[in-house]
Amino acid sequence: MQHRPIQRALLSVSDKTGIVEFAQALVQRGVELLSTGGTAALLRQHQIAVTDVSEHTGQPEIMDGRVKTLHPKIHGGILARRDRDQAVMQEQGIAAIDMVVVNLYPFAETVAKPDCSHADAVENIDIGGPTMVRAAAKNHQDVTIIVNADDYAAVIAEMDANQNSLSFDSRFNLAIKAFEHTAQYDGMIAQYFGARLPQQSSKFPRTFNTQLQKKQDLRYGENSHQQAAFYVEHKPAEASVATAIQLQGKELSFNNIADTDAALECVKSFAAPACVIVKHANPCGVAIGNHPLDAYERAFKTDPTSAFGGIIAFNRELDGETAAAIVARQFVEVIIAPVISQAAKDALASKTNVRVLECGEWAAQRVPSFDYKRVNGGLLVQDNDLGEITLADLKVVTDKQPTAAQLEDLLFCWKVAKFVKSNAIVYAKDGMTIGVGAGQMSRVYSAKIAGIKAADENLEVAGSVMASDAFFPFRDGIDAAAAAGITAIIQPGGSIRDEEIIAAANEHGIAMVFTGMRHFRH
Amino acid sequence: MQHRPIQRALLSVSDKTGIVEFAQALVQRGVELLSTGGTAALLRQHQIAVTDVSEHTGQPEIMDGRVKTLHPKIHGGILARRDRDQAVMQEQGIAAIDMVVVNLYPFAETVAKPDCSHADAVENIDIGGPTMVRAAAKNHQDVTIIVNADDYAAVIAEMDANQNSLSFDSRFNLAIKAFEHTAQYDGMIAQYFGARLPQQSSKFPRTFNTQLQKKQDLRYGENSHQQAAFYVEHKPAEASVATAIQLQGKELSFNNIADTDAALECVKSFAAPACVIVKHANPCGVAIGNHPLDAYERAFKTDPTSAFGGIIAFNRELDGETAAAIVARQFVEVIIAPVISQAAKDALASKTNVRVLECGEWAAQRVPSFDYKRVNGGLLVQDNDLGEITLADLKVVTDKQPTAAQLEDLLFCWKVAKFVKSNAIVYAKDGMTIGVGAGQMSRVYSAKIAGIKAADENLEVAGSVMASDAFFPFRDGIDAAAAAGITAIIQPGGSIRDEEIIAAANEHGIAMVFTGMRHFRH
Repeated sequence: MQHRPIQRALLSVSDKTGIVEFAQALVQRGVELLSTGGTAALLRQHQIAVTDVSEHTGQPEIMDGRVKTLHPKIHGGILARRDRDQAVMQEQGIAAIDMVVVNLYPFAETVAKPDCSHADAVENIDIGGPTMVRAAAKNHQDVTIIVNADDYAAVIAEMDANQNSLSFDSRFNLAIKAFEHTAQYDGMIAQYFGARLPQQSSKFPRTFNTQLQKKQDLRYGENSHQQAAFYVEHKPAEASVATAIQLQGKELSFNNIADTDAALECVKSFAAPACVIVKHANPCGVAIGNHPLDAYERAFKTDPTSAFGGIIAFNRELDGETAAAIVARQFVEVIIAPVISQAAKDALASKTNVRVLECGEWAAQRVPSFDYKRVNGGLLVQDNDLGEITLADLKVVTDKQPTAAQLEDLLFCWKVAKFVKSNAIVYAKDGMTIGVGAGQMSRVYSAKIAGIKAADENLEVAGSVMASDAFFPFRDGIDAAAAAGITAIIQPGGSIRDEEIIAAANEHGIAMVFTGMRHFRH
Repeated sequence: MQHRPIQRALLSVSDKTGIVEFAQALVQRGVELLSTGGTAALLRQHQIAVTDVSEHTGQPEIMDGRVKTLHPKIHGGILARRDRDQAVMQEQGIAAIDMVVVNLYPFAETVAKPDCSHADAVENIDIGGPTMVRAAAKNHQDVTIIVNADDYAAVIAEMDANQNSLSFDSRFNLAIKAFEHTAQYDGMIAQYFGARLPQQSSKFPRTFNTQLQKKQDLRYGENSHQQAAFYVEHKPAEASVATAIQLQGKELSFNNIADTDAALECVKSFAAPACVIVKHANPCGVAIGNHPLDAYERAFKTDPTSAFGGIIAFNRELDGETAAAIVARQFVEVIIAPVISQAAKDALASKTNVRVLECGEWAAQRVPSFDYKRVNGGLLVQDNDLGEITLADLKVVTDKQPTAAQLEDLLFCWKVAKFVKSNAIVYAKDGMTIGVGAGQMSRVYSAKIAGIKAADENLEVAGSVMASDAFFPFRDGIDAAAAAGITAIIQPGGSIRDEEIIAAANEHGIAMVFTGMRHFRH
């Protein structure tokens, strides 16, 4: 069935991108325009004939524009069911409005302004706009709603192909966009004011409102019997797996994305050229080097077995030599770097399965955001862990003082331990991981595993340093470290047995520093 | 400053709870009532004088109620700034509306009805209601908005204490609730239609819209330098950590809640009385038994070191004897069970730090929901892992057939492995875990750890069975299992080396079954 052609449109937009051209296109197609405020003024500047909403309704705009479109002639015109409301429309002098073009000023941008007062925030809450958007979206059976300038061209093209009308599918699709727009708008308002409740001390709003955009459906989730999709923030604040562009390779899987995130966030910790190899959500090899190839080769050495099928992240542009070395040596699932050089693209091109991601550069100053942990029926929300430790934060607690080289390795090791699942123990030497003990229910086993893995790879632990993501509850971890030849330890401190643990380090002639900061990551 | 008393209120509610009494209370306080539709009819039935909105505006209700309140007299009355819009109000005959009492029929309930058509869903989208709610909330400087019947009593009490007016803080608080209400409403609409896009194959909507309610602010997050809060769904579908009531003990921490979720979801897997002890997000001891005490004692035996400071979950009412045994034996952070008996409460009362949670009974048929994995800039969304394996699903792939007792242990072990972080290897015998190898980057190390831990606790591995959450990539894991005395293995199968791995099992005289289902959990 041919749908009724669009004869009358109401235009009132915050984002004026392309509105003049779109309005001209509508006029050329015989559409009569209603408009208001800044949009009407802009269109008139371009000699486009528009009727003011107040003229159309016979009701002046009042209260500085607070009430202008909230009128039966507007909403009757939008909401009328064309197949059964003709009589009342005629009786009440209501003309059908076939298209509504309205978008809302992003509330988040209003309140992000440093001088935004409570009154400014409140005054920026649009009432008439969302009502027209919602009314038109509800009546998508008869009305076209456009909230995004990106849709103008396709709408005009479809009108041209379709005697000035749109298909139901198009109208329904646009209606969904409209509700997505208003849901996001009110979500932002609730989120903003919900963190500003009277007497509230916390920055966490009373209700947690989020809207994320689907980036891609995934073949499946963590396992093949789970369906999954990948959603991203509207405007990710930082280069990340969410902003990454896939240059080649197979489709990313759920586990690829999760592991790529872990690898990339870890490699961001380092100022020097660094490489992180992740497997099963844990770094299995991390190293810094003079250049990416050097870093990769040392990271790989930690645990070549686990590196097989791993995810590899760099904090520098990926060069051709490094790219070639990776694919020559190992099976790799994903490679991610801020920039992938042309030489690297060429080196990887023949390995068509390897997923290659370019995420863009990130700023040294990391961006605070929220981390989530899902539980059945709820969500734990916390600051993402951006805690950092510098030399100045370290407190030497042993008789033995760490050397400058040990201090460098201790800080390196500490950064790695932050990204290893708790309990985490990491051995390192010369800016390279020697053994990674991950995810154990008691700390001493993480230390044992780090040692076993180092030995299995013929890496010498003697002379290495050790990081522990949380304090040692007992001296056994220190004794085990000493037996393995560890010479310096970094850990938060804070155990009720700290004295005993420091005494153990002194006994073994180990240097130990406290960070005062823990990095559990589960 | 004394706020203007409430003189005129507009009432139009979907949820009629308490509305008659509230309207009566308003009338007794001299408030003039405007109303519409079903609310007006109900109030008149109770001899409460109300003016119809259509009478107030002089505009008949049209289009079967699609347009009734979208009128300048209503919205001018709500949005007027009392300090500067008096002239225009007088000129236009607009009477101030000081209170708006509107709530929206939950869209989720409409569409949950099995016979809900597209037209039904669309017709249930309210346009006038949200507009009044939003307008009144915007103008909280002058107007009181109530969206929840729970607030009626407090509003009347405050009016009585305050010469029929409300404080700014109360009005602001109610305004935030109003935006929370409309954000949730449009979020539900976007979520519903967003999964019904033309040509969309996936059940995941184009935008992912969620609103969660804060249950509590937390002292801190996973670490003390991270702030955190715990949010829960509006109506959790299943007994869970989100529905749990804390009967005693210190405040729950972020890690407590996460670990309690892991323990509880794991213990739900078992039909027999079971106990799960979790530490650092991993089960460190799991057992079934004839009764909770039996299950606890056996679960504890697996790894007493890790059980120290653990989270303990039961799938039966917690009795006094079991409660007493726990606190006599070990330091425990959290105990959770569907019901905590009076005897258990008594037994735990003196241990005032121990957090005791009662979550209620869950149904045998588990409830599908979404699991999330946060990445920087985005969110991975997947079905929660409710995959289950029964005897009938098992495929014996070795010459050796498992015995009936082995099959029982294999299924037990498999259920535990599902909740151990990947790579996961679990050894078990007689419905009790013997060793848990968690969170390793290569599978063979998980097997090694399970063996080392069992040996350290003097548990005999010989005669145990083994579960692996994913297939073995190489035969080394089977060889290691054989060396430890494992007699039967359960694993998904599906490796390209399955033949080699089956041959290894045959060589060692081990029985092996394939599930065809993997349970990665990271």
